[in-house]
Amino acid sequence: MNINEIKKYLGEDWKKTEGYISGAVKCEIGLLDSTNRLILSHSGKQLRPLLSVLVARACSGGKATDDSCRYAAGTELLHNATLLHDDVADDSDQRRGAPTIRAMMGPTVSVLIGDYWLVKAMELILDADTKNDRVIRMFSKTLSDLAEGELLQLQKAQSGDTDETDYTKIIFSKTASLFEAAALAAAISVEASAQIEEAVKDYAVSLGLAFQIKDDIFDYSPEMKTGKPAGVDILEQKITLPLLGAFANAGKEAEMSIRRKIINIADNPDGIRDEILSFVRENDGLGYARKVLDKYIEKAVSALEILRESPEKEYLKELAYFTGQRQS
Amino acid sequence: MNINEIKKYLGEDWKKTEGYISGAVKCEIGLLDSTNRLILSHSGKQLRPLLSVLVARACSGGKATDDSCRYAAGTELLHNATLLHDDVADDSDQRRGAPTIRAMMGPTVSVLIGDYWLVKAMELILDADTKNDRVIRMFSKTLSDLAEGELLQLQKAQSGDTDETDYTKIIFSKTASLFEAAALAAAISVEASAQIEEAVKDYAVSLGLAFQIKDDIFDYSPEMKTGKPAGVDILEQKITLPLLGAFANAGKEAEMSIRRKIINIADNPDGIRDEILSFVRENDGLGYARKVLDKYIEKAVSALEILRESPEKEYLKELAYFTGQRQS
Repeated sequence: MNINEIKKYLGEDWKKTEGYISGAVKCEIGLLDSTNRLILSHSGKQLRPLLSVLVARACSGGKATDDSCRYAAGTELLHNATLLHDDVADDSDQRRGAPTIRAMMGPTVSVLIGDYWLVKAMELILDADTKNDRVIRMFSKTLSDLAEGELLQLQKAQSGDTDETDYTKIIFSKTASLFEAAALAAAISVEASAQIEEAVKDYAVSLGLAFQIKDDIFDYSPEMKTGKPAGVDILEQKITLPLLGAFANAGKEAEMSIRRKIINIADNPDGIRDEILSFVRENDGLGYARKVLDKYIEKAVSALEILRESPEKEYLKELAYFTGQRQS
Repeated sequence: MNINEIKKYLGEDWKKTEGYISGAVKCEIGLLDSTNRLILSHSGKQLRPLLSVLVARACSGGKATDDSCRYAAGTELLHNATLLHDDVADDSDQRRGAPTIRAMMGPTVSVLIGDYWLVKAMELILDADTKNDRVIRMFSKTLSDLAEGELLQLQKAQSGDTDETDYTKIIFSKTASLFEAAALAAAISVEASAQIEEAVKDYAVSLGLAFQIKDDIFDYSPEMKTGKPAGVDILEQKITLPLLGAFANAGKEAEMSIRRKIINIADNPDGIRDEILSFVRENDGLGYARKVLDKYIEKAVSALEILRESPEKEYLKELAYFTGQRQS
């Protein structure tokens, strides 16, 4: 799928969304303004606002409102804010094939600019023509979900006992929650019915879960084009779906032995990582994760059924298939 | 002045405020909840909520509302959020005489919990009984002021050309803006008149500026009980009021020579710091800063004149004098 084709198809609605994004972070302080422009120039796929504008149009016969575009822009600002903070938290040097703000300008700038983008997201949402308390609360909730998800992941990394229920909770909070907000805000902006709201919410949550599972599969697949080495998650003691799948396939005894090694990974990080990469390969952890991923893609696509036929609906389906297939 | 005496005097209103603070950050994730309780146990003076509750009562004949207490709590949550982020930005190990969350649990936890407190502040404000768009926007504005102030300070540190106008702008954004929001939100919560709003705003801005100037004086006064070594600001190339005062007293030539040294401080950090500490002492930079500080204290106190007489008004005055005198 060609993401740019969708953006082109969305025409003025997409341009307006991009205008809200860049307008929100324009400012008079030189250091801040130039950094913001640098961040905008490495925008990545902009999946969240894309999803948001598509949903608004799919729910309204192609008639997105100014508020649809504001909310869509807000999801991108919020997403970038969390990346700026994540890069400090993870000491990351590279993101989207470019050096991170943290690497170039230090943690101080990355944290502060993250705060700045976060506020600008909130202000954009407060600027909506139709005041909507539900949307404001939704975005607040998403932001606390994001922080909670990361913290739960950290806590579970320390105890080494993440199971599939924990995993799903973590990836919902840290990824799917913002997809959900993007879709629901879009539906609200065009006054969709409760039934349609429910449908696009189901679509977006499944899509977000699938998106994160795909990311976690990448971490066990060095041949993917992400530019990241394999096994980073396990070095951080994060137990993700490919490993949980290998546990399910290998049986309790092997699982217990691997979990013990993860808790003590500091003893021999590279050795234990390589052993776990082999363990996941030998016990078809990727096949297991792939199946769960496919299930969510299917769920996302079928949630769309009740929507009227439209190019937007087809693009939303494509977005789901793309999420399942993407190589980077 | 005894801060605890004021808290005791505020009785139920203070208890309610404290309840909102601790209630907002109560949560089910063990790691997050225990860290939040740790932060609460090192609460410091809680000047912002104290100011906020006092103003609400001073403007209403002692009748603070639930919203007054919510807004007051919001200022403390917001303040703590920015401290959690500052500690990561500055790599700080100590705060309020205890190890920072960053030092104990790493930058990841400090950044994420900062985000969490920030959202909880917003949610508390959104929870107000009387929906008030002005208050929500005010807090948003304050938060972007805080980030902008820190970034402007960083930019100015690099260029080495901070003058008194820049300095006042920086300390307004990074400190006085939140004092202003605390007072204005309080006035709004009890439906004070526009004239009273203006008065408490003037009070709070002057108080906030004085508070930050006092902090900057500490940095040149190793004998104060802050527990911090002297000259930290200058090592970070921050030009604050005591140095600007010394510039004003010493003349243009000496100023230019010192400014050049600050730009190149990396060449000989300790030597240049010691030289600047002497320069400020010899040119009475502290006397200069002290005078500006006293002017703001006086301005804060006289802004209160139009308020009806009350114990709260007296406490607000005392708070101003305390800010001028505090030794830590």
